[in-house]
Amino acid sequence: MTDLAHNPASVRARLIDVAARAGVSVGTASKALSGSGRMRDETRERVLGAAEALGFTPNRNAQSLHTGRSWTIGLMTTDGIGRFSTPVLMGVEDALGAGKISVLLCDTRGDTIREQHRLRLLIERRVDGIIVTGRRTDPRPPLAGVGSIPTVYAFSPSTDPRNVSVRSDDAGGATLAIEHLLGLGRTRIAHVTGPTHHAAARDRAARTLELLGRAGLAPAGGRVHYGDWSEVWGRRAADAVIRTAPDTDAFFCGNDHIARGVADALRERGVRVPEDVAIVGYDNWDTMALSARPPLTTVDMNLGEIGRLATLQLLSIIDADAREAASVTVPCLLIVRESA
Amino acid sequence: MTDLAHNPASVRARLIDVAARAGVSVGTASKALSGSGRMRDETRERVLGAAEALGFTPNRNAQSLHTGRSWTIGLMTTDGIGRFSTPVLMGVEDALGAGKISVLLCDTRGDTIREQHRLRLLIERRVDGIIVTGRRTDPRPPLAGVGSIPTVYAFSPSTDPRNVSVRSDDAGGATLAIEHLLGLGRTRIAHVTGPTHHAAARDRAARTLELLGRAGLAPAGGRVHYGDWSEVWGRRAADAVIRTAPDTDAFFCGNDHIARGVADALRERGVRVPEDVAIVGYDNWDTMALSARPPLTTVDMNLGEIGRLATLQLLSIIDADAREAASVTVPCLLIVRESA
Repeated sequence: MTDLAHNPASVRARLIDVAARAGVSVGTASKALSGSGRMRDETRERVLGAAEALGFTPNRNAQSLHTGRSWTIGLMTTDGIGRFSTPVLMGVEDALGAGKISVLLCDTRGDTIREQHRLRLLIERRVDGIIVTGRRTDPRPPLAGVGSIPTVYAFSPSTDPRNVSVRSDDAGGATLAIEHLLGLGRTRIAHVTGPTHHAAARDRAARTLELLGRAGLAPAGGRVHYGDWSEVWGRRAADAVIRTAPDTDAFFCGNDHIARGVADALRERGVRVPEDVAIVGYDNWDTMALSARPPLTTVDMNLGEIGRLATLQLLSIIDADAREAASVTVPCLLIVRESA
Repeated sequence: MTDLAHNPASVRARLIDVAARAGVSVGTASKALSGSGRMRDETRERVLGAAEALGFTPNRNAQSLHTGRSWTIGLMTTDGIGRFSTPVLMGVEDALGAGKISVLLCDTRGDTIREQHRLRLLIERRVDGIIVTGRRTDPRPPLAGVGSIPTVYAFSPSTDPRNVSVRSDDAGGATLAIEHLLGLGRTRIAHVTGPTHHAAARDRAARTLELLGRAGLAPAGGRVHYGDWSEVWGRRAADAVIRTAPDTDAFFCGNDHIARGVADALRERGVRVPEDVAIVGYDNWDTMALSARPPLTTVDMNLGEIGRLATLQLLSIIDADAREAASVTVPCLLIVRESA
């Protein structure tokens, strides 16, 4: 391998330079480097030697004009680069691994005009495919103007069932939490979560009520406690629940912020967690889950796996040039720490 | 503007199709679309009309072969996509704005082999420039093998002073915190921070001691309290400081995690913040700073501005094809909330 560090000028060596050094035509040099075409072994080796001596690197932009593939995929995040899109993005990178596909990043920040501008750029760059992600589990309209470019929706599914979406199993995540609490013998379980207009709150709450009902139980406080995704709401809700339903023995919280707020409010009331009251959070966000007192038992959505699977689905569509890929739901994991 | 959404098949219309429809040669069509070359207005308009009717989008990969520019920059993050690289990345996107430059994302996760592989891909794609970022303020060795490609280091500066680096003004950040506390009349100020082997901890501590010394003061507890960047450390350090120096009237903390831990420990001891003891954090990380009780007064490194300036520096190097750009230090901001 050529050490580029000690040969900086050679980074931009051109195919014509390689051909000249090897004493062959540009066409022969091109074939030798791509491993195609017929020629004597000796000729091919001379070209490869010249390329190495000059530190020649092939121009993928030129190659893509011949192959019809740009070896790039666009990653369009609709809500900035945040807590949810970051692990998805890392999963995408994992799936691409040591291959030669690069990721073109487009952060649209929920702005439709910006989204259209970025999409136009991706089309002009002839991306082989697009992954769309966001921070909400609510289905979103398909990317307008994407045409025939293979597209996969990750975490934020498409409203169009013909599109390929890789989503988190929110009902399954709630099942893990509730079954864990029931298994610990808890029967007076409160559910504190985010706003009703978020699918993530509604879907987890619906499954929670369904499972409690099946077990012949009602939620502590008589209903789901919808609010926002914050610690402040967790603290306030915990105070209200304990006041109206003092025999509550567990909280299942819609995210780790809320769970942490609940844990703080209970501790400050002298309630022991998990001895008196168990808590299960959602998201397994390290910052929240590990710093909470006690550290949180929580549901992990496996966002990296969502990004990885979305990429594999996309690559299979691109390679097969077909619509074989199907939508997938990725199961959650329960991470058991000290709070339940 | 053609509505791509209603004309998906045309997304891949080729230049040759435009030329055929307009009844001109491919060369003429190309010149008409790029606005170059001499031709009758009527001819140019016919080509533009044909391009619009077919929903033709120029192939930037083909254009780049002519212009020698790929209109892409590589963003190499050495430590995953995290709390520090994310706002830098958003600043990069802001600087690129509505332009036609795209970002190729490379997340090397601190793995040198992966870094070299990704760099090779960027070189093969003929990126116009590279921005290198990471999560630490410690200078890092220059990217090996980058050759003559314009490169700017953002947040994590290069050890080579000939490279262009855009760094945060850590000493200035500490100055903002200490001057604020002194201005509030606090004189028994403790400094609790991260590990000594992090430049961010050392640089802020050095300036803190310097300013206290100038004011004729010693740090509360007699020394800087080095530990780690966690809430757990903040809680432990606060307990230790209050035990050994009960007259402490302020904490300047190396990050918001530590500050939040300090706030929790003080509250649980019945110490009032900010009445009895003031607290200033560092990073202005919303999750920590806003959920703390009380919400934290903290130093904001303006990471978005670091990303934005790094991009502008890079673009000026690319455009001028020169080494005009100089390293820059970006000032911090003090965000005053309730803790001090």
